[in-house]
Amino acid sequence: MQASLGNLRVVLVAPRNPLNIGAAARAMSNFGATELRVVNPYEVAFRDAKSAAGASPVLAACKEFATVAEAVADCAVVVGTTAIRHRQLQQPVKQLAQGARSIRARLGRPQVAILFGSEKWGLSNDSLSHCHWVLHIPTREEHQSMNLGQAVAVCLYELVRREGRRATAATPEPLRGEKPATVGVVERIAATLLAALRSSEYINPKTGQLAEEKLRRMIRRMTFQEADAEVFLGMLHKIVWKLGQKEKPKP
Amino acid sequence: MQASLGNLRVVLVAPRNPLNIGAAARAMSNFGATELRVVNPYEVAFRDAKSAAGASPVLAACKEFATVAEAVADCAVVVGTTAIRHRQLQQPVKQLAQGARSIRARLGRPQVAILFGSEKWGLSNDSLSHCHWVLHIPTREEHQSMNLGQAVAVCLYELVRREGRRATAATPEPLRGEKPATVGVVERIAATLLAALRSSEYINPKTGQLAEEKLRRMIRRMTFQEADAEVFLGMLHKIVWKLGQKEKPKP
Repeated sequence: MQASLGNLRVVLVAPRNPLNIGAAARAMSNFGATELRVVNPYEVAFRDAKSAAGASPVLAACKEFATVAEAVADCAVVVGTTAIRHRQLQQPVKQLAQGARSIRARLGRPQVAILFGSEKWGLSNDSLSHCHWVLHIPTREEHQSMNLGQAVAVCLYELVRREGRRATAATPEPLRGEKPATVGVVERIAATLLAALRSSEYINPKTGQLAEEKLRRMIRRMTFQEADAEVFLGMLHKIVWKLGQKEKPKP
Repeated sequence: MQASLGNLRVVLVAPRNPLNIGAAARAMSNFGATELRVVNPYEVAFRDAKSAAGASPVLAACKEFATVAEAVADCAVVVGTTAIRHRQLQQPVKQLAQGARSIRARLGRPQVAILFGSEKWGLSNDSLSHCHWVLHIPTREEHQSMNLGQAVAVCLYELVRREGRRATAATPEPLRGEKPATVGVVERIAATLLAALRSSEYINPKTGQLAEEKLRRMIRRMTFQEADAEVFLGMLHKIVWKLGQKEKPKP
């Protein structure tokens, strides 16, 4: 069929309703996505969903993670989703049709994760801080909030969608030699830079949490090639080591 | 918002699950369709759906009919839906993206009805005989059958869908508010990082020139937003200052 969603990871963050988890898995199966991940689900819901009659292979293979960071560690691009407007989003927002093109353009390369928030609250700012950008599903002003399973179905449909006969193959070739860094490495860069900023007193411990989220967003906006990311990480490690070494003699 | 779905009638034929009826109504509300009709529903399901907490105005206004013929009597165009291929359909079949264009082209005129079959069987041949043509939702061969609520959501989304700026190329256009850093700032980042790497003995003075060139190329490959570049530069300055401060007491 259409674009293959084999490299796509669908991540449900804190889902609470087993029917929604099942519905997300069903939509994935309909549209050819296979890798479902859940972060910190309501445990009863997750168990119920997995044991439901007719639970799909997608659900059976679903992996559970404690944090968003762990769930997306092997991905190169992390995309949030929201149907809500007027939210003070720190991340760039793309309309679904436009954003789906960006995602399709990357599906041949390392993994793309697409995050869906909980039924009640959507994605928290902390979850969003892991996202490179956010997909906006164009719902009506007066009733923006979508059902979770339906949101997953609509997004996946848009990803495999083809204009009738116009089949403009949305499969662009990967750029020669370019291989983006995975989120896991980028997260380590963020953590190491954070350590350097603490050692050098750039970060005030009182406002550390805010600084951490800001920093993570900033690092996400930079783009790293895989090889460069490793080199950069090595540099930061050395700097942190040096900053620490100089602190020790003090006492 | 987008195309108005005010002239669209969504018709559920023989739905059996109150959750699906509710989900269809919710998707309609999300995408701006208001007129829901049900034909010969499982009565308990219909009652439960209508009386559910948080049932939408769409559900409250939902009308019940005994036959498809009565439900579509005031419509000018009747469109069936299916996710199943290889069915001996007597009616012309249009892919969803293509079919949605036909429907949109008619939405200003007398009513268009779009029919969804029961969860278990889809639309019967009898129901299909009322349709001018059939919309096909492009699901995967191995798992074609869609959840009813999700099928409604996907079809309505396609009806209100707009191509961003129709940048057909898969080149993601620059995001709103994105302004790349100038070469001057990037050069200062390279220079400051270099200073930090010298202070922390990452760079061996003997091979310093080569390292400098490599570093500059690496920094060029990273992409920075203008505002981020300034922040990052500030961080590096602080780190360099700290590294230098600790060196001074030595002599």
